[in-house]
Amino acid sequence: MKDIAPAYIPNIDDVLEAHKRIEPYIHRTPVLTSSYFNDLVGAELFFKCENFQKAGAFKVRGASNAVFGLSDEMAKKGVATHSSGNHALSLSYAAGRRGIPCNVVMPRTAPEAKKAAVRGYGGIITECEPSTTSREEVFAEVQERTGAEFVHPYNDPRVVAGQGTCSKELMEQTDGLDCVIAPIGGGGMVSGTCLTLSNLAPEVKIYAAEPEQADDAYRSFKAGHIIADDAPQTIADGLKVPLKDLTWHFVSNHVTDIFTASEEEIIGAMKLTWQRMKIVIEASCAVPMATILKNKHVFAGKRVGVIITGGNVDMDTLPWIKG
Amino acid sequence: MKDIAPAYIPNIDDVLEAHKRIEPYIHRTPVLTSSYFNDLVGAELFFKCENFQKAGAFKVRGASNAVFGLSDEMAKKGVATHSSGNHALSLSYAAGRRGIPCNVVMPRTAPEAKKAAVRGYGGIITECEPSTTSREEVFAEVQERTGAEFVHPYNDPRVVAGQGTCSKELMEQTDGLDCVIAPIGGGGMVSGTCLTLSNLAPEVKIYAAEPEQADDAYRSFKAGHIIADDAPQTIADGLKVPLKDLTWHFVSNHVTDIFTASEEEIIGAMKLTWQRMKIVIEASCAVPMATILKNKHVFAGKRVGVIITGGNVDMDTLPWIKG
Repeated sequence: MKDIAPAYIPNIDDVLEAHKRIEPYIHRTPVLTSSYFNDLVGAELFFKCENFQKAGAFKVRGASNAVFGLSDEMAKKGVATHSSGNHALSLSYAAGRRGIPCNVVMPRTAPEAKKAAVRGYGGIITECEPSTTSREEVFAEVQERTGAEFVHPYNDPRVVAGQGTCSKELMEQTDGLDCVIAPIGGGGMVSGTCLTLSNLAPEVKIYAAEPEQADDAYRSFKAGHIIADDAPQTIADGLKVPLKDLTWHFVSNHVTDIFTASEEEIIGAMKLTWQRMKIVIEASCAVPMATILKNKHVFAGKRVGVIITGGNVDMDTLPWIKG
Repeated sequence: MKDIAPAYIPNIDDVLEAHKRIEPYIHRTPVLTSSYFNDLVGAELFFKCENFQKAGAFKVRGASNAVFGLSDEMAKKGVATHSSGNHALSLSYAAGRRGIPCNVVMPRTAPEAKKAAVRGYGGIITECEPSTTSREEVFAEVQERTGAEFVHPYNDPRVVAGQGTCSKELMEQTDGLDCVIAPIGGGGMVSGTCLTLSNLAPEVKIYAAEPEQADDAYRSFKAGHIIADDAPQTIADGLKVPLKDLTWHFVSNHVTDIFTASEEEIIGAMKLTWQRMKIVIEASCAVPMATILKNKHVFAGKRVGVIITGGNVDMDTLPWIKG
């Protein structure tokens, strides 16, 4: 597969500008520590809690940067995306704050709770069939009709620059980290982390964590080119999507290693985090902790930043409880 | 029923001394806000998050004050209590930090998970039958054998003074609260809150929140004397115990009102807090939010401190999921 070069690669000035632009609309989320996990790993862990972020996930950073960076003229027509997850919520939230429409194309089969959450933030849902063909057709029709600006969930320089503000805050809130680890799906958060740290703290190593059952980034990283999975299945549903040209650029250039964890290990780390840290985290952001616990030798004695990416969980179906 | 006067009533100096004594062993827990709940209630809510406290609950404040206030000679023989809840964990934690034994009498029938948690903090468990007679007999035997200092879960001036440090911090972390609300069981947290606020901020009203199905404090408050329930049943298992002379003193003198909530309302508020605030809280500390939601007129337009008392939850059996 030939990897196409991205049209525009955001730089550190884009991150600094993004931070100024979005600060009124996002939380500067806290960094928590846990003596339990420190003892368990033999390291000092610093959890950047984006589960406490507006709309419940880091994605509001990139979405807000895209929305508030639009000219007034472009903004009038609104924004549009296809997502059934946190990007849909976040873009709806950001558009709502600017007072412009947000069109979201979602599969007819998406859980009612997710549709209700998007509508709760003011998003306008157009349903498609649960196939790539239908999604692309319906999305093209919506964009044609509305003239709305497409904001991709991760393969967008405005989004990557926005996500980069998270590790900028983390560096301001901690002293002398040795490394940072974040979950990887499409690679938006990891790319933003690479962008910020490679410029502001190039000595800090960047690790990514991925479900074994959706390990396309791991295999891409080892192969040296993008490998996309066809419909992977994992409890970490935010991490099913493949890398794209822009995120591959950052991952291939700045990530030190990618670790994977089994479904059982992810669920175990998720439950343990809820139990011991008393915070609600998504399965996706339990993946870093799961990989830390099985690769303690890599992290022992280190000061480790861990990005807790989000906390939007269906409370009625928890993976460790048989319903 | 005749209410016996307490032997010693702690004063504000006891709280200030307690705070200095226990600061090395406890967290200064964060105060969180939630725009979702603010909008829902039409008030400004400030959540004092003792679910993030050492051993997972505010009880470590009182327990640490008792443990670290002992003379070296007394401390040698250790401490003892009867509890199957957070006080047992907290006293075990505090004793462990001082390096002295902690004897806990627990019913044979208590969940294995709770026994394991107490042992995890270094507590030594002696089992009794699940009756008051057996508990008292076994406890007397343990105390006789060890000479350990009895630390009551709440009817103890050292414990009440320790719990009072929580609202002292809350006042330091917020500006101009109109009122504070906390759950009430035996009344340790509410008494500590009364002790601190009646001295440092007498203009701040104090409310207590209680399960309808364990509403002995509510009925005592209305009757003007202690009424103790016989084995009440509620999901808020930290709140089943009755007021005693010392806590009745504070409740009867300083509490403005006591509100109650049904089991369904408590479970609903608990789930909603997990969902929207992304924090793990016990059923007991969902009771204040449940009562705020059904008494919005009392809190509307006010700046309200809400004590989140603990986060020790059995993750395998959540009350809104049928297992």
